[in-house]
Amino acid sequence: MTTSVIVLAAGKGTRMNSALPKVLQPLGGEPLLAHVLSAARALSPAAIHVVVGHGMDAVRRACDGDDLRWVEQAEQLGTGHAVTQALPYLEAGTALVLYGDVPLVPAETLAALCTAASGGVALLVMTAPDPTGYGRILRQDGGAVLGIVEERDATPAQRRIGEVNTGLMAISVAMLRRYLPAIQPSNAQGEYYLTDVIGLAVAEGVPVQTVSVQHAEDALGVNDKAQLAIVERVLQRRRAEALMRGGVTVVDPARLDVRGELICGRDVFIDVNCVFEGRVILGDGVRIGAQSVVRDCELAAGVDVRPFSHLEGSRVGAAARIGPYARLRPGADLAPDTHVGNFVEIKQARVGRGSKINHLSYIGDAEVGCNVNVGAGTITCNYDGVNKHRTVIGDGAFIGSGSQLVAPVTVGEGATVGAGTTLRKDAPPRQLTVGGGRQVTLSHWRRPQSKDRTDG
Amino acid sequence: MTTSVIVLAAGKGTRMNSALPKVLQPLGGEPLLAHVLSAARALSPAAIHVVVGHGMDAVRRACDGDDLRWVEQAEQLGTGHAVTQALPYLEAGTALVLYGDVPLVPAETLAALCTAASGGVALLVMTAPDPTGYGRILRQDGGAVLGIVEERDATPAQRRIGEVNTGLMAISVAMLRRYLPAIQPSNAQGEYYLTDVIGLAVAEGVPVQTVSVQHAEDALGVNDKAQLAIVERVLQRRRAEALMRGGVTVVDPARLDVRGELICGRDVFIDVNCVFEGRVILGDGVRIGAQSVVRDCELAAGVDVRPFSHLEGSRVGAAARIGPYARLRPGADLAPDTHVGNFVEIKQARVGRGSKINHLSYIGDAEVGCNVNVGAGTITCNYDGVNKHRTVIGDGAFIGSGSQLVAPVTVGEGATVGAGTTLRKDAPPRQLTVGGGRQVTLSHWRRPQSKDRTDG
Amino acid sequence: MTTSVIVLAAGKGTRMNSALPKVLQPLGGEPLLAHVLSAARALSPAAIHVVVGHGMDAVRRACDGDDLRWVEQAEQLGTGHAVTQALPYLEAGTALVLYGDVPLVPAETLAALCTAASGGVALLVMTAPDPTGYGRILRQDGGAVLGIVEERDATPAQRRIGEVNTGLMAISVAMLRRYLPAIQPSNAQGEYYLTDVIGLAVAEGVPVQTVSVQHAEDALGVNDKAQLAIVERVLQRRRAEALMRGGVTVVDPARLDVRGELICGRDVFIDVNCVFEGRVILGDGVRIGAQSVVRDCELAAGVDVRPFSHLEGSRVGAAARIGPYARLRPGADLAPDTHVGNFVEIKQARVGRGSKINHLSYIGDAEVGCNVNVGAGTITCNYDGVNKHRTVIGDGAFIGSGSQLVAPVTVGEGATVGAGTTLRKDAPPRQLTVGGGRQVTLSHWRRPQSKDRTDG
Repeated sequence: MTTSVIVLAAGKGTRMNSALPKVLQPLGGEPLLAHVLSAARALSPAAIHVVVGHGMDAVRRACDGDDLRWVEQAEQLGTGHAVTQALPYLEAGTALVLYGDVPLVPAETLAALCTAASGGVALLVMTAPDPTGYGRILRQDGGAVLGIVEERDATPAQRRIGEVNTGLMAISVAMLRRYLPAIQPSNAQGEYYLTDVIGLAVAEGVPVQTVSVQHAEDALGVNDKAQLAIVERVLQRRRAEALMRGGVTVVDPARLDVRGELICGRDVFIDVNCVFEGRVILGDGVRIGAQSVVRDCELAAGVDVRPFSHLEGSRVGAAARIGPYARLRPGADLAPDTHVGNFVEIKQARVGRGSKINHLSYIGDAEVGCNVNVGAGTITCNYDGVNKHRTVIGDGAFIGSGSQLVAPVTVGEGATVGAGTTLRKDAPPRQLTVGGGRQVTLSHWRRPQSKDRTDG
Repeated sequence: MTTSVIVLAAGKGTRMNSALPKVLQPLGGEPLLAHVLSAARALSPAAIHVVVGHGMDAVRRACDGDDLRWVEQAEQLGTGHAVTQALPYLEAGTALVLYGDVPLVPAETLAALCTAASGGVALLVMTAPDPTGYGRILRQDGGAVLGIVEERDATPAQRRIGEVNTGLMAISVAMLRRYLPAIQPSNAQGEYYLTDVIGLAVAEGVPVQTVSVQHAEDALGVNDKAQLAIVERVLQRRRAEALMRGGVTVVDPARLDVRGELICGRDVFIDVNCVFEGRVILGDGVRIGAQSVVRDCELAAGVDVRPFSHLEGSRVGAAARIGPYARLRPGADLAPDTHVGNFVEIKQARVGRGSKINHLSYIGDAEVGCNVNVGAGTITCNYDGVNKHRTVIGDGAFIGSGSQLVAPVTVGEGATVGAGTTLRKDAPPRQLTVGGGRQVTLSHWRRPQSKDRTDG
Repeated sequence: MTTSVIVLAAGKGTRMNSALPKVLQPLGGEPLLAHVLSAARALSPAAIHVVVGHGMDAVRRACDGDDLRWVEQAEQLGTGHAVTQALPYLEAGTALVLYGDVPLVPAETLAALCTAASGGVALLVMTAPDPTGYGRILRQDGGAVLGIVEERDATPAQRRIGEVNTGLMAISVAMLRRYLPAIQPSNAQGEYYLTDVIGLAVAEGVPVQTVSVQHAEDALGVNDKAQLAIVERVLQRRRAEALMRGGVTVVDPARLDVRGELICGRDVFIDVNCVFEGRVILGDGVRIGAQSVVRDCELAAGVDVRPFSHLEGSRVGAAARIGPYARLRPGADLAPDTHVGNFVEIKQARVGRGSKINHLSYIGDAEVGCNVNVGAGTITCNYDGVNKHRTVIGDGAFIGSGSQLVAPVTVGEGATVGAGTTLRKDAPPRQLTVGGGRQVTLSHWRRPQSKDRTDG
């Protein structure tokens, strides 16, 4: 049976208090809508129709894909009205109606919902710990669905019903075509409610199937920033649990943020408060120190990242030691057994095996050989104000502390650069190159006298 | 009706295990007492009497205000005794009795309590999930208050009562004058309990009103560090919720600390573990990266603060990019579109529009023009051991990496300072100024030989 | 009565998904097994027998001690089989059976269990909020223990029993010798269950005593990384509570990690997200700023550690000010009233009273006197590529910013080193020593022209 997905994503989200359309609010580093689309795609549907309205251009830009058909809902007149906009484009079969602001329903649940509909209609329901505000599912002696009664219309007995409607449904396109035109905006908001098709189905004697979410939180919707934060924590807890099932040691699952894809080898250890963004791959035995931030990186087996490190767009070879306070910027490519220490920034640079850059340095636009020792306070002067130039350092070179390497410049293999050298010309291999002048002592000099005593 | 507030703040807080008086223990960055005084002031009372004893000098210093009258309770003989100390100073009207260690009662609840008293007496009560330890409210058939029974005197049936006394009350000053002298210290501690006035009122047939707290946590008291931590989290969660209601995206409300006032524009994004202290103003679209600390700062619209930044006493112009690992110290004043990067410290310095200080620099006591590029490892030598001097850098200047600017010194407009220059005299505009000596290579030099092999 | 402890530690822990044996998984910075051994040792038993199998060499290496007897269980055939391996080595008396993966049972509970056994047998039981999966304790009219029924064999009524078996027991060695040979592997796994001795005891009319854990979480076992994280949080919460009871202000007990021993004086303040490792001693009034990491350090009274600091193997004198972003490495020994500021690394160095190293410096293998001012960007060049050398700085010296001190080198008492000096020879006392060449301005120089405009 052909399945078409309809995602309702036109709402403004006034309670978000934001210039960003509601479905673009970030969850786990991606727009809410992206989560819904991802679940939808897992079903391999015939088509995904996204009904957009508020901020539709921004929504399209943020989430566009070849498999999406964008349907405009110029006025937001309710969920029934939204689905009606997509109706002309639907193939015969089953329509699965999703919400761009209900991001946590697993694809397997959606698949079960489609299966349950099987040419008719199936509702996704949940048993809410507190059903207040939800439409309650009315059943005949606990069996066949008789309808949905909204909170405001419910009798006290009905209000005690814990089984409620999530709003998601799978329904035959033929039924949608038959019932949607019959829906009336007979409510305070003057809106057309998709839910009313259930009443019409029941009235025609069409059986209404139900599928229940596995966890009540699967069906959480996001209407304001507080709900966004709740859903974020649910998502993060699930990601942490998935990592732990895979054998990752997560020191505190409540203090892990994964905003993208985190792929871990065996015996990875992640200390508290780490944030992962984009696509991060951690090899066997990698340790990520407390409070670190890692984005779009690949770290080979045994890499030890110490606290307060910030890694982005980098590759790190096996058994390298990074941090604390190391900053790897895009294009840092460190060979195995390298050491990058505190207050060191590396950008667009290859660093060869066994090389050490341990303290207070900036290495940018560089090619560093193997077994190089870069002293504290070394700076590659890669920028002349308008252009970037490269620094090349040969294998086994020793760069004395406090040196500036004024690119373009080459330090030869096995060369030694003296401390405090401003290297403007190449340093030949295996020789010592020093800069600076002679050290002079002025014996009659007197220290400046205090004008006012401050400190700092 | 005139309202006078009495705040009981004389206790030592032995269980705090602290040299600091209990009411000065910090909550959300302020003493406990300050929270109570803030709620009291919201009522615009005729007077606020603070009854102090232990550490009274420290308490006065920490919380003094023109609107406070300090009353000494030389010996701590109970709450009734404490209120008695304030009695001589009370005007006719209503007295509202608060506790310096019960910091979360909202002003609206206090106002309701005063209104309920209306010339008589009203108790603040709560329904405790676990009433153990509290005085239970006894009522006639669930109606009129008959009294309060303490835990130790309660029958098993009474112990099951969930409605309990918080200790806060509003009571006519006339009643206080009548009842307080009648209270007896007939208990194990030999203390005079304010609560006993309720019994006396009931005995006289005076009706006792009650007002219930909205949330049980409103009435939390603080007697030890564990309770202090609980109350801190309640306060912080409320502050996070208020920010989220206002549209701020708080990635994890359980990991936000606001110790003072945080004022946010639209679409502010606050990542995990940030700490805000003092008065902080964040413009529209400001992003605060993970693990950052911000105190007494004003950040204009679109400022992007990256992780691990520490900002204090600074102003940052629109769309500036700060961090990661940026340290702004008091007096940093950055124009729009500035960039301050990793391992950079800025103190008492103005930085003009479009200027960049991206790496490993210390800029203190300086005036930096517009579109200046400050190279990595640049240091303003602002301190000669006794005095501070200023550095001035003109618009469009380029400071080569690893330079020291020995203040007082001026770099002219459009000037270029070569890498590794120790600038002791002014650098003229639009020219290149370089320091250092010539680079020399020693071809017969041999590397030192190992005496012992260590690493570091 | 002689007590022998048997710790079962042979399991692989397949669900851990780890190359590390289960009992070596880290909890609070130590292997799970170390926690169990620590509780066992508190009982001063006659012997501690550790039954090992999977990864036994690694387990022995990680946890060895003179008081431990290692017993190999070559095949893992169940708990009864494991205890049988230890049987030949047991003295007469009571055997206490513990599990290497049940790390939170307090020593007092274990002592109570031994006492309850008093020559017979006593089981450690708990009342589980959800007993699913546990063996239920069957009692005669709520009195004498009749046996333990496993989940799979329980009737619906039995499944509702909340009192369950933790597996820990104290039992007379004589009974073990009698019953263990009688146990049959009559279960799906074909394993010998220690629990079956209870049935045998009951059958013989031996009374079975029970001791209940104080908190259900005391008996938590660890079978996978998710359970490991749960147990970690329980342990950390308990450590935070113990610190708070002692008077420490812990801003957020849910965001404190103590992996070792943290000894605190009065009025210590620990901000959010701090991590303590090894043995750390904090004097009265010490403040540890947010997100800091401290390992194996001793900080004297009044030390103020600011956020993002990383201290290891260091001693810090009274009232010193450290950070933010300070890195103290092993061997840093700071006198009272020292200041170490941002982006400063100190290693194997003594720093005298009142000295300041405030910005962007690396001080390693050094002896710094009192009242020394070390300017920003100062680097001790302690490493010549093969050997480490020492730098000595006399009292009252002033090191100008951006200097390199090429060790071995001595700066005399009261000496001044000019900014940007590469100090290769000693600087005499009380005089100014400067390096570098003269500053030259090239008036006809023109800036480089752009080839492509990027930014970096």
